[in-house]
Amino acid sequence: MANSPSGDSMTQRLVRVLETFTAERTVQTASEIGRRAGLPSSTAHRVVDELVREGLLERDDEHRVRLGLRLWELALRGSRALRLRQAALPSMERIQARVREHTQLAVLEQDSALFLERLSHPEAGANITAIAGRLPLHASSSGLVLLAYADPELQDRVLMGPLPALGPETATDASTLRRTLAEVRRQGFVVARGTVAAVSTGVAVPVRDENGAVIAALSVALPRDAAPEVAITELLRAAREIRAALSAR
Amino acid sequence: MANSPSGDSMTQRLVRVLETFTAERTVQTASEIGRRAGLPSSTAHRVVDELVREGLLERDDEHRVRLGLRLWELALRGSRALRLRQAALPSMERIQARVREHTQLAVLEQDSALFLERLSHPEAGANITAIAGRLPLHASSSGLVLLAYADPELQDRVLMGPLPALGPETATDASTLRRTLAEVRRQGFVVARGTVAAVSTGVAVPVRDENGAVIAALSVALPRDAAPEVAITELLRAAREIRAALSAR
Repeated sequence: MANSPSGDSMTQRLVRVLETFTAERTVQTASEIGRRAGLPSSTAHRVVDELVREGLLERDDEHRVRLGLRLWELALRGSRALRLRQAALPSMERIQARVREHTQLAVLEQDSALFLERLSHPEAGANITAIAGRLPLHASSSGLVLLAYADPELQDRVLMGPLPALGPETATDASTLRRTLAEVRRQGFVVARGTVAAVSTGVAVPVRDENGAVIAALSVALPRDAAPEVAITELLRAAREIRAALSAR
Repeated sequence: MANSPSGDSMTQRLVRVLETFTAERTVQTASEIGRRAGLPSSTAHRVVDELVREGLLERDDEHRVRLGLRLWELALRGSRALRLRQAALPSMERIQARVREHTQLAVLEQDSALFLERLSHPEAGANITAIAGRLPLHASSSGLVLLAYADPELQDRVLMGPLPALGPETATDASTLRRTLAEVRRQGFVVARGTVAAVSTGVAVPVRDENGAVIAALSVALPRDAAPEVAITELLRAAREIRAALSAR
């Protein structure tokens, strides 16, 4: 419907425009958006005008454009991301009170781990994850948990695709990763040292919904050589609490 | 661009489709969406198919449709709502640890108070606000703060419009409200008893950005007859912390 001469639909153009906004790039001109989205300048200006009219983008006094609060509202109001995050937040706060590093909630989305929430202690170390940011499934502790319980077809697709090293200890061959995934399923958690960054260790557990299906990974990022036992205990307890909270709704 | 026979743009149709999803209605069929959005069934199916193709909506095994994680990701990744919420969350957690009721962050959006975040104690009383939900400016403590520091034109528009009573003590005449707004600016906070619901009292303060502009309201919902002093002190301290956190970025 409503295709442009290039064959893009309006929805595809919308996605391309929204994709140009990142955590580091929150304000742009319409021309910059067009260039980054690969749209002709006149098209970019028309699409931006239309999105501003509906509040999905907002324009400031200097005619620069940013994501609109109306878009935020429409994307969140009825979303399962919000429902899951609300069910998880009290348990995440309890983990934070105990472990005092970073506590994160991620879901499987388009062959990545997409982070829905992150709580960080002010004095905790560096952490690459960001809310609404992604990490590869094979490299992050959250990703390994999500991959371990994913459909076999998705596992095959990921393991046969490129497996870049993020950290010094990222496993990048399929057979090592298959053994790790089997171990995750057997143990019910993973401890991933140095797979995302040399300085940190990720600890992650699966979160199940009221029917027992794995719907998310709950993780803690620790300093590289920290003992993981307290984090494992707290994460497993939190996953049980979240499942109970989801069942109670 | 890309207008339908009825004159709607694709963006308007998109917004009408997304608007049919609410906190209580997270899963719908394409036909239900069409009926609720006032779109012909064939149009609704076509728009839904296109949004599913881009991941903005998702379809489950029973062909029902829900908001997509991809939409959530695109709406949040570069949003100032997320930036503000991240700056505010540690302070909101400290308020919660002390007051143990409900702590909320709201911004002005399209003549309403739009709630970006809410933390609630498990045993706290009822609370009408929800994340990504709205309350009228004249009735809620957050709204009164946002209105008190808003442009005079916006104040006039709101005060001359309909002023429905939400709670037994909602002020519904413009002159009373004008006095309240002046009082909010003089004191730097508001205590609103029974204006949203008979059983609760809202306490709210303005949150300023690094330039001193009021960009949000931080509030606590207390039981109707609770003393507000601790909440006021904690909220004012948190607003200073959030301003400092925003300045530090």
